Amino acid sequence: MTDLPKTVEISEEGPREGFQFEQRIITSARKIELIEALAETGLSTIQAVSFVSPKRVPGWADADQVVEGLRPRAGVAYTALWLNEKGLVRALAHRDKLALAGSISMCASEPFMQRNQNRDFAENDRVQARQIALCQQHGVPVEQISVMAAFGCNFAGEVPIKTVLDVIERGCRIAAENGLEIHRIALADTMAWATPADIRQRVGAVRARWPEAEISLHLHDTRGQGIACAYAGLELGVRHFDAAVAGRGGCPFAGHKGAAGNVCTEDLVFMCEEMGIRTGIDLERLIEVANLAEAIVGHPLPGAVMHGGSLARFRTVRAA
Amino acid sequence: MTDLPKTVEISEEGPREGFQFEQRIITSARKIELIEALAETGLSTIQAVSFVSPKRVPGWADADQVVEGLRPRAGVAYTALWLNEKGLVRALAHRDKLALAGSISMCASEPFMQRNQNRDFAENDRVQARQIALCQQHGVPVEQISVMAAFGCNFAGEVPIKTVLDVIERGCRIAAENGLEIHRIALADTMAWATPADIRQRVGAVRARWPEAEISLHLHDTRGQGIACAYAGLELGVRHFDAAVAGRGGCPFAGHKGAAGNVCTEDLVFMCEEMGIRTGIDLERLIEVANLAEAIVGHPLPGAVMHGGSLARFRTVRAA
Repeated sequence: MTDLPKTVEISEEGPREGFQFEQRIITSARKIELIEALAETGLSTIQAVSFVSPKRVPGWADADQVVEGLRPRAGVAYTALWLNEKGLVRALAHRDKLALAGSISMCASEPFMQRNQNRDFAENDRVQARQIALCQQHGVPVEQISVMAAFGCNFAGEVPIKTVLDVIERGCRIAAENGLEIHRIALADTMAWATPADIRQRVGAVRARWPEAEISLHLHDTRGQGIACAYAGLELGVRHFDAAVAGRGGCPFAGHKGAAGNVCTEDLVFMCEEMGIRTGIDLERLIEVANLAEAIVGHPLPGAVMHGGSLARFRTVRAA
Repeated sequence: MTDLPKTVEISEEGPREGFQFEQRIITSARKIELIEALAETGLSTIQAVSFVSPKRVPGWADADQVVEGLRPRAGVAYTALWLNEKGLVRALAHRDKLALAGSISMCASEPFMQRNQNRDFAENDRVQARQIALCQQHGVPVEQISVMAAFGCNFAGEVPIKTVLDVIERGCRIAAENGLEIHRIALADTMAWATPADIRQRVGAVRARWPEAEISLHLHDTRGQGIACAYAGLELGVRHFDAAVAGRGGCPFAGHKGAAGNVCTEDLVFMCEEMGIRTGIDLERLIEVANLAEAIVGHPLPGAVMHGGSLARFRTVRAA
């Protein structure tokens, strides 16, 4: 009936997503504190920083300082986001600490790409080719195609499934032209359009066309559908999810008015572990870190389990 | 692969659930304002008030005044909650406005029943029999068995599926002894233990045993699983859901520390309508009412779509 995986891998995006969205200034020391606390929870991948324009995303003007101050924990991959070669060059300076992996970054909506990356599709194809060359020159692997706005767009409206498939196809062509093998396709619901039915349809369509590729999902919870969409993904056997501690984050260029956080890591961990899907993450410690995140930003964050608590303390009732 | 229904019926519990949980005093006039606004959204059933002990639930001490002041809208069923004969007698006094329907109220956890209704299972069986007699005497239909704590309990720990089935069986026996036919089984995740996998298992087990009965779900979102659980229910063809505008509510006796709201009506309506499941509810008006609810209680409420907005305004982009 369903095909739930036995294990999942969650890439924590809370630091990167969260600090790009905060209005107030947060010190580098506190950003480091959050990243280091996350590394103690069992998370194997943490997107720690964003090497983007400090003018456009002031919250990450201190990305270099944050990485410099970070004491990495063995066994944890600290990743970074960049959107152009300049960002990639900045990231390359921190190869001692960061686990760099390139991605052929596509978008299913040209108006959103204009707004988010300030370029059209044709220009993006050229940028991706140059970034691949730079990655290859520095031995950075590129094995993923990522698709922003894969479920709909606040600036283009509905995004047909065919557009998503075409965009991935173009990414595959870029990969082939550069001698790359693609192992993963990352679908991002950048502006929170997806319902569980959309996950079934689009993940199904992508898998039908590229049955060998792993699929990962980057979900937002702006309309309360994040965990339900993750469940729909799990039902299809999806094993890779991005999530953000305490449900932090959101794209500064997505045109949202309200809460726009990512799917919440501890709520996702709760669902998976309760359903017998291993995450490798210590939920109780993660809940503590979610509360730390709330203390650091100084306002309530949207996570549920961080406020409602896990079931562990109630289960001990039975044993008593 | 899935069996999504074409339509669903949502019973709005926001007034009853929400006001029982508020710390501050809310005037009867504002309660009425919320109920009347909800009636304009297309909702066909609104649980308006709670006839419970004013000592135990001070937020509903004014239940009589609220019903008296309410101007009912034609076509909307205004329902009420009661937990004992005294409450039922109070409700009967308002039969001109309220659509009264009895339920054989069971609980899968005796410790929770002790705490919530101040009686054990044996005493509850007697109370149910007396309530049924009172309903029959006044021509109030009793066609439902409801089961609190059907997914787990903060005071008893895990609740085995067998316990849930046994409790429904006992409800059926009470029904049979009183010449009643049961048409619906209402499963309540009173303390927010359910994951989507639990919904599949328990709804599946109940349906296997009572294939003729409608199943309705009462879900709480304390651990962020409400919408995902509703989706799991929809996949099984469940067509009846309780929900609360703006994600209000929570049981005062559930022993929660944090946000404990019901599954959020407008987030559920959003999911259903986006997936092509008709609810009969005007989402845009409902979002307005969710914001009214927030204004009335004077603190942020956990709904997502009420803050993030629907997709309607973005879809017009495409037409432009």
